Amino acid sequence: MVAKYIASLRALAARRVVTLVAAAFVLASVIVILVRLGPPAKLNDLKLPDVKLPDIDMSKLPNIPGFSGSHEPEHYEKCDRNITEPLKLWKAAQQKYDKLMDDKFTIAMQTYKRPKELDETLRVILSEKIASLHEIVIIWNNLEEKPPGNFKSETGVPVRYRVSERNSLNMKLLPDPDFKTQAVLLSDDDVYYKPQDLEFAFQTWRKFGQHRLTGALPRCATPDAEGNWGYGFCSKDSNQDVYSMIITNLCFSHMSFLDYYSSNNTVMQKVRDYVDDHFNCEDIALNYVVSYLTGTGPLLVKGRDKYVNYEPAQGISKKPGHLEARSKCLNDLTKMFGCMPLVNETAHIERGVIVL
Amino acid sequence: MVAKYIASLRALAARRVVTLVAAAFVLASVIVILVRLGPPAKLNDLKLPDVKLPDIDMSKLPNIPGFSGSHEPEHYEKCDRNITEPLKLWKAAQQKYDKLMDDKFTIAMQTYKRPKELDETLRVILSEKIASLHEIVIIWNNLEEKPPGNFKSETGVPVRYRVSERNSLNMKLLPDPDFKTQAVLLSDDDVYYKPQDLEFAFQTWRKFGQHRLTGALPRCATPDAEGNWGYGFCSKDSNQDVYSMIITNLCFSHMSFLDYYSSNNTVMQKVRDYVDDHFNCEDIALNYVVSYLTGTGPLLVKGRDKYVNYEPAQGISKKPGHLEARSKCLNDLTKMFGCMPLVNETAHIERGVIVL
Repeated sequence: MVAKYIASLRALAARRVVTLVAAAFVLASVIVILVRLGPPAKLNDLKLPDVKLPDIDMSKLPNIPGFSGSHEPEHYEKCDRNITEPLKLWKAAQQKYDKLMDDKFTIAMQTYKRPKELDETLRVILSEKIASLHEIVIIWNNLEEKPPGNFKSETGVPVRYRVSERNSLNMKLLPDPDFKTQAVLLSDDDVYYKPQDLEFAFQTWRKFGQHRLTGALPRCATPDAEGNWGYGFCSKDSNQDVYSMIITNLCFSHMSFLDYYSSNNTVMQKVRDYVDDHFNCEDIALNYVVSYLTGTGPLLVKGRDKYVNYEPAQGISKKPGHLEARSKCLNDLTKMFGCMPLVNETAHIERGVIVL
Repeated sequence: MVAKYIASLRALAARRVVTLVAAAFVLASVIVILVRLGPPAKLNDLKLPDVKLPDIDMSKLPNIPGFSGSHEPEHYEKCDRNITEPLKLWKAAQQKYDKLMDDKFTIAMQTYKRPKELDETLRVILSEKIASLHEIVIIWNNLEEKPPGNFKSETGVPVRYRVSERNSLNMKLLPDPDFKTQAVLLSDDDVYYKPQDLEFAFQTWRKFGQHRLTGALPRCATPDAEGNWGYGFCSKDSNQDVYSMIITNLCFSHMSFLDYYSSNNTVMQKVRDYVDDHFNCEDIALNYVVSYLTGTGPLLVKGRDKYVNYEPAQGISKKPGHLEARSKCLNDLTKMFGCMPLVNETAHIERGVIVL
């Protein structure tokens, strides 16, 4: 009798426990559902008060005594337009290429020991007819190995391998005398626009960007309080939200800028030596050249889809010290130019219409 | 004893029911949670096979016998560039306004019996300094009432009320000889860019859009199988995703286009009469003028925020028959021009950088 009583108490207790657990679970589920059904808490709900920052040209801030670092940085103004000789050189370059086609483009794709990436990028670009693509030139920087033979794709595009005279980043920026088009898409073997977005990017270059580096990947240069330039991946913060460079792993350039970059102008010779010494920053340097000559910024273009980039996790831009090295390039190049030529651009171009 | 037995059975049954309901609820909750935790099913996962449509110029499709409607529509080709006289007239207009400022702009804002909307729009535009805004001219179309007096805002912008000689939509497009700027923001009293986006839109006009209608609201013209043009709000569908008009309730125009629109060119006189007869479509007509003279499309610009539009639910574009009336304008204007001048644009401009 006692045993039976205890057993019934146990059963009761067990039932109570089960009921409690079930109730707790139901309650937790209801809470989770309610939380998920509610409007998402947006980060930008946490708005700062709408304080207007004055328009300060950071590059013109005076050095605050006792506030600068261990060295006194040299200070360089923004470049002005009193550059008669460089402009004359650029104009001559423009005339030199005036007879080239302006309604087609050439791809200059740099590669170094990455046959898998190169093949995949070529496969995608050649998989569809791209109306304005005239030729692909592979800048072959692996001097230890012979390139494959030239060929013509099923879509009718000639692919030519051009062996570099040395493994130098400057080779990609050569104004190849065999190019037949004024527009050159500078690119690397691991990044591309999808075919119809590439055609769109070229048409955008024609319409809006012939005097700009026009492409997919924006970068930013920001001065610190001491006037030193820092390199970065840009920010959507409302007091920034600009860019001043488009890097040359996927961007259109007019031949005349490549000509100027490769010219025997004293500054450009120094710049090319610097690029070879550091094996870096030819893309920053080309942005300096274009904005120096035109006084305008570059042009960011997004197709219907994002560009594709299968840069491995170990790519150069992921290495520790990458941003520091790039910042050093900014400051060294500014010194070589004697002024800061980069110009912030506030607009970018996207494909298609907005339906609101 | 029997009663007790029945009662215990009832209690058992009740407990079973409670347990079953709780279990069902828990199960349902788990299912709901799992569904919500999973990746969202994207509509664009349902991709159509990647069939390429041939590039057909729809305007050049022949009429298929027996396939056309009750009337045989007149067919008009795309306009070509053999328009020596109109181009001469436009060039003269450009020279006429060459001395006006090109680094400032004027707002020409049309209003008709909507003091509340007008006041609110003015309040917002004048609430912040807009660096390049030179003057606001209110096109006062309510001839029954005197406008308020001119004034200068706290931000230093003169606001001038200009009484129209008659209540006509053509009044907004007059090249006012008192304008001091080459750029005119054509606008209505119920729609605006926020101040800093307005400055951005103007800078975009300067850099990319001086020969285009550059503004906020895109519209589309699409031919049917019979060659009749249909007016619409555009679509993001991948085989469309273009636009060919920016309507003039918020867009920049160069003075030379207003001059041409208001000239004594025979076609333009007919067009203005048509606009007055139908009290509609002056904005479509200005798009025809600009693309006719330049051979290019307009330019859609989005600021950081969407433009603001407090058009009431009863606004003209919501009325039944609106799209039909606008489509009729497209076809009638095409007849007047003798060809279809509109050009599809595939790109638009947005403010800021893309951080990916």
